[in-house]
Amino acid sequence: MTPHRPLRPAGTPMRPGEHVVVVGFGPVAARFVDDVADLAAAGTIRLTVIGGETDPAYNRVLVGELATGRAELAGMALADPGLLARSGVDLLLGTEVTRIDRSRRVLHVTDGPAGEVRELGYDRLVLATGSRPNLPVLRGINPDPRAYEHLPAGVTALRDLRDARAVRAVVERRGRVVVLGGGVLGLEAALAASEAGCPVTVVHHAPWVLTRSLDAPGGALLGRALADAGVPVVSGAQAREVSLDEDRSFRGLVLEDGRTLPGELLLLSIGVTARTELAEGAGLRTARGIVVDHELEADVEQRVFAIGDCAEVLCKDPSCRVCPGREGVGPSGLVGPGWRQAEWLAARFRAELDAVAAGGTAVLAPLTDGPAAAVRLKAHQVELACAGTVGGLPWEPRPDGGTVVQWADGSAGSYAKLVLRPDRTLEGYIVLGLPRAAAEIGLLHDRGEAVPEDPGVLLRLDGPDAGARQEARMTPESTVCHCAGVTMGRIADAVGAGAATVEEVGCATRASTGCGGCKDAVRRIVEEHAAAV
Amino acid sequence: MTPHRPLRPAGTPMRPGEHVVVVGFGPVAARFVDDVADLAAAGTIRLTVIGGETDPAYNRVLVGELATGRAELAGMALADPGLLARSGVDLLLGTEVTRIDRSRRVLHVTDGPAGEVRELGYDRLVLATGSRPNLPVLRGINPDPRAYEHLPAGVTALRDLRDARAVRAVVERRGRVVVLGGGVLGLEAALAASEAGCPVTVVHHAPWVLTRSLDAPGGALLGRALADAGVPVVSGAQAREVSLDEDRSFRGLVLEDGRTLPGELLLLSIGVTARTELAEGAGLRTARGIVVDHELEADVEQRVFAIGDCAEVLCKDPSCRVCPGREGVGPSGLVGPGWRQAEWLAARFRAELDAVAAGGTAVLAPLTDGPAAAVRLKAHQVELACAGTVGGLPWEPRPDGGTVVQWADGSAGSYAKLVLRPDRTLEGYIVLGLPRAAAEIGLLHDRGEAVPEDPGVLLRLDGPDAGARQEARMTPESTVCHCAGVTMGRIADAVGAGAATVEEVGCATRASTGCGGCKDAVRRIVEEHAAAV
Repeated sequence: MTPHRPLRPAGTPMRPGEHVVVVGFGPVAARFVDDVADLAAAGTIRLTVIGGETDPAYNRVLVGELATGRAELAGMALADPGLLARSGVDLLLGTEVTRIDRSRRVLHVTDGPAGEVRELGYDRLVLATGSRPNLPVLRGINPDPRAYEHLPAGVTALRDLRDARAVRAVVERRGRVVVLGGGVLGLEAALAASEAGCPVTVVHHAPWVLTRSLDAPGGALLGRALADAGVPVVSGAQAREVSLDEDRSFRGLVLEDGRTLPGELLLLSIGVTARTELAEGAGLRTARGIVVDHELEADVEQRVFAIGDCAEVLCKDPSCRVCPGREGVGPSGLVGPGWRQAEWLAARFRAELDAVAAGGTAVLAPLTDGPAAAVRLKAHQVELACAGTVGGLPWEPRPDGGTVVQWADGSAGSYAKLVLRPDRTLEGYIVLGLPRAAAEIGLLHDRGEAVPEDPGVLLRLDGPDAGARQEARMTPESTVCHCAGVTMGRIADAVGAGAATVEEVGCATRASTGCGGCKDAVRRIVEEHAAAV
Repeated sequence: MTPHRPLRPAGTPMRPGEHVVVVGFGPVAARFVDDVADLAAAGTIRLTVIGGETDPAYNRVLVGELATGRAELAGMALADPGLLARSGVDLLLGTEVTRIDRSRRVLHVTDGPAGEVRELGYDRLVLATGSRPNLPVLRGINPDPRAYEHLPAGVTALRDLRDARAVRAVVERRGRVVVLGGGVLGLEAALAASEAGCPVTVVHHAPWVLTRSLDAPGGALLGRALADAGVPVVSGAQAREVSLDEDRSFRGLVLEDGRTLPGELLLLSIGVTARTELAEGAGLRTARGIVVDHELEADVEQRVFAIGDCAEVLCKDPSCRVCPGREGVGPSGLVGPGWRQAEWLAARFRAELDAVAAGGTAVLAPLTDGPAAAVRLKAHQVELACAGTVGGLPWEPRPDGGTVVQWADGSAGSYAKLVLRPDRTLEGYIVLGLPRAAAEIGLLHDRGEAVPEDPGVLLRLDGPDAGARQEARMTPESTVCHCAGVTMGRIADAVGAGAATVEEVGCATRASTGCGGCKDAVRRIVEEHAAAV
């Protein structure tokens, strides 16, 4: 879907010499900085980046992997401070922004709660403050999100490196883990911990996990698959309190029905909330995030922008085809959409600068929302992908005239549900335990292509005699890395130009540098190229 | 399933010269007579057949076809009275048996209500009295089943030639038809009438048609397929009365909710009841039919037998693996099981005569119940086959440890449900709109073979590229004609021996002489043989 209108002519386009300040230094900010660092190096703009953590930007998406010992910090760096400094980027780590003074275009910054407050001027402000984990309302836990630093020992989310270290200590001694929340990240952490040898239980409030992404059958079959993978789910459960021992360490989660689920670690995974306090304090509009229009502008003067998890695209045009249905959608928690915003904003600034240099006006294709982002469970034991609207039944009429196709094999534990529009494009889908069908169906969904007249052909991709069929279908336009939006063709080009490892392909194309779920696919492409040469 | 015990040594085995009297001359009686006519011709036994109708035996299964103009009486004959007479068979048509005097082994027979009552002695009595249509409890209709002859004009079932003629008159002028009852026969009649150009509505009391054979999704999708074929179903409907015009002719069916469904014809299709009055009057045990044991004996002296729709196999052995589950099952209405009983009883008599001639004791393999008979909707517009137990869902555990596989394509209107036992043999199935899958699944069910590890391969048989796969699977053991139980191999043998038409194959093997649903398959085999030669 594209926004309702083309990018309007810039009112106050960026001019050479302006000072761009980026607040936040997570993966989305790092991507933006990466894309405009050359402008800073050339002296076209001044660029300052302010990070709250003392570590430079790392791939936050991999914090769960780090926690369960499947990734190391060394491989998670997203930015090289020395290189940035040499490019002329001002990098302020361990620094907090306490206020935005929009009238004077000045930030108040401090090196910590006790630090002195300094002023820092800006011409353009890019907010990439991300999100923070939600805290449950449980006896024994302070539900104020800002109390996150003061959780009892053994109670943590998986947001930053400190969290990862706390979890890893328990995982390494194979301690018992209770995961609160059956969303994607909670399930991935539970499966990884189980694979690492920990006894794990997931507690979920609704009748089935991934409640918003799955229908009841999909939820039931996923629940079975999780149990088979050593991750029993306690569904429809209301947690009441954390049971702590005398030194205030977690020792069990008490449910409303009186049961106690013992454990050494309570992993909180009940969603995230956009960090909007700064924007709120500056009088900017916020809803589930900092409200921006389709050009990512948070204010009418086009001086403040927001990208990534802290931003919510929500325009005021009642005829906009994109926004109404999105109202009330919070941060996605996925890196892909934020990366595309970072990329687009950098390109916008560059186009404005180019236009000023050429004495013209910038014209830039508007940022398009891709199809609804897919949920993919990244785990070795369970294969699940789903996206979009998945309600309805094959034997009931759909209000829009569309139809539903459903396959469920209770024996194999596999499930596929396709919700088709009248033109046979996909409104949504669920695919469990059928990895090749999932890839093909995801492709049809992302490209807005029609599902074959006989959808049964999709199931064959995982059949005993599928063989080369799936490879044949991979075209140069097939997206391999969904985080960075990298196609098969671009990866093949990089390999042809000399990239000989997954890491080298990542450097050349950014493929596999997000969630890492495509690493095996990239490795296959590299190996096939090597074999062909 | 086989009965619990082998056939016991005959207490009073049949001896040469005995008089066998068959009461009834429907398809099952005709089959029995056909199988023992040579014994009569050779003078080994005396054989008398008593038919209530004045017409000789005709294929009652085709009455619906006759009614809708798709069959003619000429092609429906099952017996040639002249040939039987020349074989020495006494054929008494238009004759009613009013009483069985078991102590004297004598029947009271009459040529009609006003006719004189004569006595007719027997040594062995074979009851093949069949069943009669159930009548609904509706204002305007006398519900006494014996009042069948006195239904209002335009209200009829489809049991005999008179019914067929009444229906055909309406069908030929494309009159509006209301079918009461959404069972197999009602739906087949409705589809045939619709195909012949009549506006048709089916009224069914339950939420979906074929209620006992289908689950809710299958029922809903079949309902849609019927509507698409011009046969709307009014489900969950309670009929209240028939609306008649001044000359007592049907003009509409009034429902409990006040709606009137207008029509020129009300076709009653709400099941049949075994004709057991004669047996009851003779002190024989009856339940849903004349109760017989696994040797088809209705009395302990082995003088009275029952076969076909009037018989209910229900032994007294509490450990019998066959009977308990069958308790309460009424007449099947299918010709296949009756034909197998007729065939077996004829073989039993022959074996007893042979044993007496050889001075020994007859030993005969007991009559085995095949797997649960499949329900196959014989219609051009809708393809449906189902059998066995079809409850349960893929995402819910089954008490027996089995599993369920389900495919539903709301767009194509196709549906498949396989209920698997722990060993992957079929407990039951539903297949709608997938004719080749239905054939293969029916085969797996009938043979007790395991469903493939990836049941998705079954769907491919109806896929766009299925081609020759299905033919390859047809083995010499594949049953082509389910009524007469004729395999592919026997048909091929008949064709090899010179049978060059469907009719000639029918004469040689009886294939296609039942419901006629396999005629296309037989024709294909004949043509393939011709092409190969």
